[in-house]
Order: sequence, then C-alpha cells, then structure tokens
Amino acid sequence: MQNSKIGFVGLGRMGANMARCLHEKGYRISGLFDLETHRAVSLAQELGATACVTLAEVTATADVVFTVVTNDAAMDAVFFGKDNLFIEAQGTDFINCATLSPRVHRHLERAAERVGARCMEACMASSIPQARQGELFLMIGGREAVYTDHKQLLMALSSDLHFVGPAGKAAEVKALVNMVMNINTAALAEGLGLGAALGLDLERLCRVFRQTGAHSRVLETDAEDMIHRDHECYFSAEHAAKDAGIALGMAESLGVQLPLARATLDQYLRLVKSGKGQLDKSGVAELTFPGRAAD
Amino acid sequence: MQNSKIGFVGLGRMGANMARCLHEKGYRISGLFDLETHRAVSLAQELGATACVTLAEVTATADVVFTVVTNDAAMDAVFFGKDNLFIEAQGTDFINCATLSPRVHRHLERAAERVGARCMEACMASSIPQARQGELFLMIGGREAVYTDHKQLLMALSSDLHFVGPAGKAAEVKALVNMVMNINTAALAEGLGLGAALGLDLERLCRVFRQTGAHSRVLETDAEDMIHRDHECYFSAEHAAKDAGIALGMAESLGVQLPLARATLDQYLRLVKSGKGQLDKSGVAELTFPGRAAD
Repeated sequence: MQNSKIGFVGLGRMGANMARCLHEKGYRISGLFDLETHRAVSLAQELGATACVTLAEVTATADVVFTVVTNDAAMDAVFFGKDNLFIEAQGTDFINCATLSPRVHRHLERAAERVGARCMEACMASSIPQARQGELFLMIGGREAVYTDHKQLLMALSSDLHFVGPAGKAAEVKALVNMVMNINTAALAEGLGLGAALGLDLERLCRVFRQTGAHSRVLETDAEDMIHRDHECYFSAEHAAKDAGIALGMAESLGVQLPLARATLDQYLRLVKSGKGQLDKSGVAELTFPGRAAD
Repeated sequence: MQNSKIGFVGLGRMGANMARCLHEKGYRISGLFDLETHRAVSLAQELGATACVTLAEVTATADVVFTVVTNDAAMDAVFFGKDNLFIEAQGTDFINCATLSPRVHRHLERAAERVGARCMEACMASSIPQARQGELFLMIGGREAVYTDHKQLLMALSSDLHFVGPAGKAAEVKALVNMVMNINTAALAEGLGLGAALGLDLERLCRVFRQTGAHSRVLETDAEDMIHRDHECYFSAEHAAKDAGIALGMAESLGVQLPLARATLDQYLRLVKSGKGQLDKSGVAELTFPGRAAD
C-alpha cells in the first residue's frame, strides 16, 4: 500500500507530524487541508504535496485520508458540510484520529458505506513527539477488514497498535484513558499546589510521590511543568475539558456517577473561561498554586 | 541500641508487623498495648514480650515506644488521657507512626520535652507487607539529634529512610502523598466503573491505561481488586476519609482550593456512611461500578 496516495485533513501539530513521519517512510502524501490555509501551504511545500482549497479536492487526490480535527463539531463539518470529504468518495478510506464521542464514529461508518467509502477510527493515546517518530499508541475501532487493509500504514505510525472492536469502541477506551489521565493531572496539581503553600521542597516532594502510592505517569510528564509554570501546549486545557465532557456524556446516558471527572471538568472549564484554555493541561496548576490564580 | 527495650502502642496489622520485624532482627520487644487487649496478649506470647494493662506500664518497661494508632483523637488519648504514656516518661523516646495532622506532632514534641521525654514522627508511606519485611518507606520529622540516636533502629524497619525536617513536616508530606494517592484511586474507580458500564474488557482497559497517560501506582495495586471486588483491607476507606480531612484542613487554613480532594473525601464519606468504611480504599469502586452501590 506504499503506493497509496495519502491525504490529511487537520494539520495541527499531531496531523502535520504524522504526515511528516509517513513522508519520511516513503509514503506519498497527496492532498493537504486545514482551515488555516497557511498550514496546508507550508506543509505541502515541505513534503512536495498539494495544498487543497476544498475538502472534496482532498478526497479526489487521495486513496486514504487521515482526519485529525479538534472535536465532534469539526468532524461533522468536514464530512457533512456543503464542501465535504464524502463528495465523490467512492473507494476512499478515511482514518479518523480525533478524540470524538463514540457515537460520531458509529454514525460516520454508516454514512461512509452509503457513498461507497469506508471509515475507521484510530484513536491516539500519545503526543506530538510520538507522532513525529511513528511511535503512536493507536487503538483501532471499526470493521476488521478495513483494519487489515491498512495495517502496514498504521504500523508506520505506531509502536503500539491495538484493534479494539467495532466503531466507537476505540473512542470509548480513549475517553476513559483521557478521563483518568486528566483527573490524575488535576490531582497532582492539588498535591503540588498545597505543597507549595506549605513551603515544602517540591522537587523532594516529587521524589517521595514517585516512590509511593502517589506515583503516576502524569507525575513524570507534568510535575516539572507545573512547578516551573512551563505550560507549552502538548495537550490543551481546552482538549481536557472536551474529553471530560465526552466521558461525562457517556456516563450520564448509562446512569454512572463520576464526581471526580465532574470536578476535573469544572477545573478545566475555569481555565478556559479565564482565557487559559490554550495552556497545556499542566496549566491546571495555575488554579492550585498559591498566588497564581489571580495572574 | 539493639539492647534498648522497645514498646508498642497500637497493634493493628501495621504495628504488630513492625514489632515482629524488629523481634526477628534481634531487638527486644518489651511492653505491648492495644485497646483490644487480646491483640496485646497474643502478640506478647508470640514475641516473648509483656502485654501491658496500662499505657504507663508501657513507658515503664521500655526505652523506646512506637505508637501506631489510628488518628488525632487516639493520639490525644494515649498521651494526654488519665492513664497515658507521658507518666514517668523521663528519658523515654517516642516514635509516632500514625498519619496525623501536622500540628499534633508539633504539640507532642513540646509536651514530651516538658516531661523530659522526646518525640519524633516517623510517617509510613507503605503497607502491611513492607512493615513485616522491614521495607517501610519512612519519613522522619522532629529534632535531628533524636533521629540520629535511632537511625539504626529505623533502618531495621525501612528500606527508604528520609529525614524531612522539623516536627510536622513529615506529616505534611505524608498527607500530600495520601491525598494524591486517594484521588488517583477514586479516579481509577471512575474509569473502570464507566468501562464496566460500557461493557469493555476491563483487563484490556487496564493494559491500555498502563501504557498511557492514565498509568498510576494505584493501577498496579488496586485495579484487580476493584474489578474482582476483593476489598480486603490494607488501607481502609475510613483512613482515606481521615487523610483527606487532614489535607483539606491544611488547605483551608492556607486558603488553597482543592476540589478533587473534596470530591474524593465525599466519596469515602459515602462509603463510611453506608457501613463500608472497613473496606480497603479500593472499595470506592463499589460506588462507581454499575449495579454495585445498592448492594
């Protein structure tokens, strides 16, 4: 399948770096689209690809299209807007990488089949460096036949590739991963914030956390950033709020109570409302460290 | 100091196993006390020690007394009740291992000095097997001279020994460790509970958590127990509620907002109120898995 022409819709840092990774591994990147046109233009120059002006053009120039958009609404727009990816899409395969509500993936799979195309979800539980290096943790949902057809392509992007089940199931797992990760992040921000208020040595506190029941992956990835207020964005507070909303939406429809996910959503919404939604998720520490919230 | 006579007050599974560990390493265990007399009697038989009927008798028969009681109120009772450890305590050193409010340790240090005794805090961030094997993670707070005098004894109990600072400082760090650990535990219970409601394969979900940002130490220690409802108590829900209260008390006095710690306290209080306070902290999953809360 290395002869497939591959399009990309959504050229944020995840999408752009996945395209770079595939290009480097000899895949043919064809059409590129982003609402911010300059992204498509500059990446097209870099990779010798085409910056598309319409979504339909991406479909026309590609056999496989990756979508890496921000949320459910953006996904709805690219597939069901006036200009959209399903126009003359017969024979095209779409691999949808955004973190979306599970029902969106189920709906897309059916809609694709009506126009003779195929959709598959490829949920990513990793960040930008992994996208660039082809070491994403990928969870696939959809029809197994579609997965099999693109396994080689997915392996070029991934060091951990898991077929999870029918459409929507990977999004469910992803929503749970992000829910737990974001609660743990907000918890760490509370621990370090209170530690700062107590005048404790925070580097030593982190070493103690690491050796005890307080240890977590986010301690490794976010603690230093919280202490040093380095909130360069890998995974934005806005995204964390969105993900919490997806998990809470699923929980509500199933009658499950999630008070910590709710409290975490409230924290990330506070950040968004105070204009800090573009900070990394570690920015939640701005709410818990003494003297910061007023900044 | 292996010739010191060592007393123990509070013979729950932590205290009893610390005494067993020291006995095995050649230390002389002298007086033992617990409100539940049978515990003192049976452990005294096992270790060739004396089951004391009063607290004053423990002080009279020991050079060093470990206290491993449940909470601030119990600590107040053993040191300031009618029968108490400070009676004729001149020259006795007390090593206080319970998770208490930091101010209790500061108060005890001063009170001890008034009767010619010395107090030191030795906060434990480990569980029962580590107590038995002499592999506790110990954080020491108090006067450095007292620490130095008992370093060998503490090393017999500990694989990770840290002098943290003046009295109360170890309790502060310990409160933060437990606060973050308990939030992460409640978070995991929400993730697995919602996963169960979605009909996901929970063993696989845990494997995904382990490889992603959702990973945490409590995933290793509590996930299986949550799934299989095996809540044999290592660290009780009641203790988790108590610790959350300590952390929130410190935060309140410092003006720090901790909404996740608050939500976690509410969850553990729900467990306690429904008569499940003696379950292990993993029992918080009883509140989040579908169909369990009504049991």
